[in-house]
Amino acid sequence: MPEAHVVGAGQSDFGAHPAESYRSLFLTAVEDALAGDDGDEPLSPADVDELVLGTLGVGGRQLGLSAAAAATHVGVEGPATRVENACAAGGYAVRAAVRAVRAGEADLVLAGGVEVMNDLSESLPYWLGVSGETAYERLAGTTFSGVYAQMAAAHMDAHGTTREDLSRVAVKNHRNGARNPHAHLAFECTLEEAMSGPAVAEPLGLYHCCPTTDGAAAVLVASDAAAADLDRPSVRVAGVGAGSDAVGLFDRETYTSIPASRRAAERAYEAAGVGPDDLDLAEVHDCFSIAELLAYEDLGFCEPGESGDLLASGATALEGDLPVNTSGGLKAKGHPIGATGTGQIVELYEQLLGRAGERQVEGARRGLAHNVGGSGGAVVVHVLEHEEGGAA
Amino acid sequence: MPEAHVVGAGQSDFGAHPAESYRSLFLTAVEDALAGDDGDEPLSPADVDELVLGTLGVGGRQLGLSAAAAATHVGVEGPATRVENACAAGGYAVRAAVRAVRAGEADLVLAGGVEVMNDLSESLPYWLGVSGETAYERLAGTTFSGVYAQMAAAHMDAHGTTREDLSRVAVKNHRNGARNPHAHLAFECTLEEAMSGPAVAEPLGLYHCCPTTDGAAAVLVASDAAAADLDRPSVRVAGVGAGSDAVGLFDRETYTSIPASRRAAERAYEAAGVGPDDLDLAEVHDCFSIAELLAYEDLGFCEPGESGDLLASGATALEGDLPVNTSGGLKAKGHPIGATGTGQIVELYEQLLGRAGERQVEGARRGLAHNVGGSGGAVVVHVLEHEEGGAA
Repeated sequence: MPEAHVVGAGQSDFGAHPAESYRSLFLTAVEDALAGDDGDEPLSPADVDELVLGTLGVGGRQLGLSAAAAATHVGVEGPATRVENACAAGGYAVRAAVRAVRAGEADLVLAGGVEVMNDLSESLPYWLGVSGETAYERLAGTTFSGVYAQMAAAHMDAHGTTREDLSRVAVKNHRNGARNPHAHLAFECTLEEAMSGPAVAEPLGLYHCCPTTDGAAAVLVASDAAAADLDRPSVRVAGVGAGSDAVGLFDRETYTSIPASRRAAERAYEAAGVGPDDLDLAEVHDCFSIAELLAYEDLGFCEPGESGDLLASGATALEGDLPVNTSGGLKAKGHPIGATGTGQIVELYEQLLGRAGERQVEGARRGLAHNVGGSGGAVVVHVLEHEEGGAA
Repeated sequence: MPEAHVVGAGQSDFGAHPAESYRSLFLTAVEDALAGDDGDEPLSPADVDELVLGTLGVGGRQLGLSAAAAATHVGVEGPATRVENACAAGGYAVRAAVRAVRAGEADLVLAGGVEVMNDLSESLPYWLGVSGETAYERLAGTTFSGVYAQMAAAHMDAHGTTREDLSRVAVKNHRNGARNPHAHLAFECTLEEAMSGPAVAEPLGLYHCCPTTDGAAAVLVASDAAAADLDRPSVRVAGVGAGSDAVGLFDRETYTSIPASRRAAERAYEAAGVGPDDLDLAEVHDCFSIAELLAYEDLGFCEPGESGDLLASGATALEGDLPVNTSGGLKAKGHPIGATGTGQIVELYEQLLGRAGERQVEGARRGLAHNVGGSGGAVVVHVLEHEEGGAA
């Protein structure tokens, strides 16, 4: 079966951009991906066979056919398809692009993600809730912070996880985000600050929650032949795995794990022929701090209940054995819903090619991206590899 | 490259079902597809590797992650993904399922479509408009009937097409729909009735517009190996083509053709190695009567401007050389947005296996399905084949 390769990746600044539209943000990301770095062969929209757009469509500006509208705006003439799996829309867009290539139906596919969230004061609570289970969560008044707070409380109860553990996620990710020129909240914070933020949904405080972010990201996925023809470095898509589950937390087998993450990771590891010990870095879905801790356990970085200790040991810090969320993660880089999963692939691409600047993981050759929809109704995991690695 | 085969297809009744939910309607369609006809090997949800759901998500009951929620409800445990391309969502869901199989990543994929539209009195106008271009169409007050009315007026002006031509589409499709036990408007109408309906958007009257329909459809797509292993007949997916364009009609090169239909059809014919003369029947996207006439021309059934004559000749009637919309089409079978494109594949499957009852096209071996998003921002065309044909 043909393989797929990432041959370009770009993004807009993540942040609050009330004067931008989904089209203007997406165009910025696409132009960045097509241009490449100094020395890369530049590409044009006419080189792109297809577009897949991941977006929740917050605000409904162009709720239907937004992929086609975005394609027209950036100059792509081939078929355009929108994929939506809530906060995992962007990761599933990359997966669809990989499939188009692996099915032999396209040589160069643009996978993108975009969300505009900061000019929606009245309807934002609705839009933030629509990916929760409707009947027993959203309409009953539960918010996403409320759902993740239940997971945090359950993990604390089962494993002795503490608010300090949750806060260390924020400290680490803000430290990384401060080294990312595209991050929304590019400042460092102390453990004391992270501990003392106002409550959002107990036990989660302000520093345990990601911000409301506008942004776009774009990834170019190529076939073997197209990647070989281009005068650009490429990163191989070694494995992709996806998993789904009940949308409502109350309907799942456990509150202290996201089973769909486990299933997606198993499939991705198997497809790539590797395991967690073979990774050099990972971008994981830390919409709330507890989610990063759960990811450590669900992705096999440690045993259940040991994520707090793994984090405290420094293993997942920028200088650790397995740096996690070098981009700043959703916490500090930001969480523009549809753009988040695609943005994770952008970070891996830059790291594996040695283009990550101040946050470069030296010699990084293999990275994992973990993107969660809702509270775990849909998860997608990608494993990317580059033979020379980030020291190149 | 592996091929893909339709090994099952089912649907709910199309109609006004205010007491049903997207889950209950979808379950009906899935159970119908899994059960098969008498003599078919029955399948279970556990046999399904993945689910792709096409829906616009009208009403926002479960706007995010509806694919995962639907998967849980019908008992599918594998990855679930939502695809949205407005009224072409269901056709694009089938396309995604075919790709999953052709990429070697799944052996049996359930592609479904669903929409619940009849308990939305307050927000329905918004939802019906969200797939129009936002800035210059929807927010300026243009409706879909208004956009298609502009296309009809332009076609009348350019080619002398008449209201009688438009009305003959309704007469033909209602005649077919009256023979379809799943149709929403299963009654016949006379040319006089179709001509005299109240105006909706001049020149389009009531009988030139599809109804507001609830419904679901489901198609099972299998790999070569899985299809061969099953004790069920299968229909080969000979070719798939997709095309996109500007979402706003005002932004396109022509009002008298849907260019994305031409591009999608060209690709599908090329992939299947056939042309329009090789077809035995077609389901085309007749959301408004003018759309069926445009489809005849864009799909190559006749030259530009000759669609009215082709229809009047009887060639596309049930007994004609190329029966079109044997199901009743969107006009009489109904148009539950996300379910429409999947439902077209259900009709082809039944026709090619000789299971279409009173509306059976004798000896049908090759059929085409044409599914349009919005006013032509995204189109997908499938060509399906069965060696023995509908006389079996």
